[in-house]
Amino acid sequence: MQYDNIVIALDGNGGDQGSSQLPQAIKFAIKKINAPVHFLIYGSKILEYELKNLGILKSYYTIIECNKNIPQDATIKEALNSYQNSSMYLCIQALKNKQCNAVLSSGGTGPLVAISRHILGCLYNQRPALCAIMPNSTQGFALMLDLGANASCKAQDLYSFALLGSCYYKALKPQVQRPSIALLNVGTENKKGNNVIKEAKNLIINDSNLNYQGFVEANKMLTSCFNVIVSDGFSGNIALKSAEGVVGFLKNQNKLKRFFLYLAKPSWLDAGQYNGSVLLGVDGVVVKSHASSQSKAIASAIVNTYRLCKNEIYNNFKQELKLNI
Amino acid sequence: MQYDNIVIALDGNGGDQGSSQLPQAIKFAIKKINAPVHFLIYGSKILEYELKNLGILKSYYTIIECNKNIPQDATIKEALNSYQNSSMYLCIQALKNKQCNAVLSSGGTGPLVAISRHILGCLYNQRPALCAIMPNSTQGFALMLDLGANASCKAQDLYSFALLGSCYYKALKPQVQRPSIALLNVGTENKKGNNVIKEAKNLIINDSNLNYQGFVEANKMLTSCFNVIVSDGFSGNIALKSAEGVVGFLKNQNKLKRFFLYLAKPSWLDAGQYNGSVLLGVDGVVVKSHASSQSKAIASAIVNTYRLCKNEIYNNFKQELKLNI
Repeated sequence: MQYDNIVIALDGNGGDQGSSQLPQAIKFAIKKINAPVHFLIYGSKILEYELKNLGILKSYYTIIECNKNIPQDATIKEALNSYQNSSMYLCIQALKNKQCNAVLSSGGTGPLVAISRHILGCLYNQRPALCAIMPNSTQGFALMLDLGANASCKAQDLYSFALLGSCYYKALKPQVQRPSIALLNVGTENKKGNNVIKEAKNLIINDSNLNYQGFVEANKMLTSCFNVIVSDGFSGNIALKSAEGVVGFLKNQNKLKRFFLYLAKPSWLDAGQYNGSVLLGVDGVVVKSHASSQSKAIASAIVNTYRLCKNEIYNNFKQELKLNI
Repeated sequence: MQYDNIVIALDGNGGDQGSSQLPQAIKFAIKKINAPVHFLIYGSKILEYELKNLGILKSYYTIIECNKNIPQDATIKEALNSYQNSSMYLCIQALKNKQCNAVLSSGGTGPLVAISRHILGCLYNQRPALCAIMPNSTQGFALMLDLGANASCKAQDLYSFALLGSCYYKALKPQVQRPSIALLNVGTENKKGNNVIKEAKNLIINDSNLNYQGFVEANKMLTSCFNVIVSDGFSGNIALKSAEGVVGFLKNQNKLKRFFLYLAKPSWLDAGQYNGSVLLGVDGVVVKSHASSQSKAIASAIVNTYRLCKNEIYNNFKQELKLNI
């Protein structure tokens, strides 16, 4: 793909807040990116008025009017057949047609995964997974996947995630030749866990390209020394939301307690700045923002998406994957 | 069962710290209980010396020497066949023989569940689950189960957990006639989740004794209005540990940050005081303390176990279950 500028398609309808947080998010993001960028916004025409009011130059965006949204829990069949004129579908179609470098959506995970897989296809028949950069006290960050693209997983899927995560880590940090991989489990002892975990462990160990290091428990997600944490999409989603829930709860107390939390919490432990999980394994950069994100968190997701494209990270990941298949 | 005093059997070998935290825990617990209680301690003879050194009267305990411990990840077969002289096995045997009212162990969940099921049996063929009292900002507490007794679960198991949890809630809070039940899921929309969740939902809805209210996401565990949160043992364990991990991480910072956390955190959000998950569904009071518990958390588990027996809560739960089967 060759573009003069980075172009990001934005799903202007997805998410709990619809488009209400988007104009401010775009303003924050443009300031942070501080370089040429263009947004293809699939959403309500009213956004134009709001963007203008915020002083955002017309050269930064194109609005393609589209008011159709996909319900969060639409089935795969519904998403693919009844919502071809939805903003999410049109975004992914634009990516396929090379009208943009990446897509960012706060819409439902199920529909986003289904449409992306259908239109963009899967890389080397791997099972796509939502992958997030998790803050980590010992090594800056760790990758965690799957965070919800697959509600139920087989051992082979977990093996796919290990491969995708390892290659993505190398694309992000080329100096790490063999990223360490751990499986999220209910204990660290060798025989712990269910059959899917045990079988996945064997598949990963038997692949000499992968650097399997053991199990990790959910209470060590922020402090472990592993580069890649692999889980099924169901418990990965629950692990992430549970951690966020505690921080979110503490943040929703009265002003004084919030202030003490601000003093107690290291600055890197702020979920918002890591917003934007990459749908690793589809043939194109698709990023999922939290459905409940406010403007600052959406802005972070936009900036993170921009960096992925600008630094050719996803292309490097694809190259890496090709070498490891 | 009729006892003059409450008698609690303690597994003196289980847990990451072995017996090192136990004497101090017993001292804290005796002070807190402030009523006649007796401990049957299955563990090292050295404990006697330590208990004496702490000034604990001999009338509070009987030590049965036993130095055999079961590895955390022993298989069911191993636990049942090769560790009949372990402290955990002997504790459960004592409960079966009515030598005590309850058992408390910090040992491995797998062995504890296997031995308890084998020796004590399951109530009305229900699938036992580890159930914890979770602090909750809106209603004081919620029950959560399963927290790890079952590494993989079928829909029928989740239905069992809903029934057990509902009856246990009524035993704890008799004024609540129809405890509200929610299933832990990756989203709240009707079609979210995997097939096990969807099938379990239908089983629970179809039981008119149960008050099913919907799905709950892991970020709402501390703030939801549901009385009972049901999950499979794998993701329930991960949800709990993930939340604990965040609090634990914040608590492990430098002194100043810890102080600010102390000011930021409501006093009820302290995992230690809720230590002790009940193995709901076996025929006897078996309580599991965190493997990594320090003395204060073990003391809380002892006190919680004492209250279960003293207030006849487990017997009331069994009565309730009988009415609802």
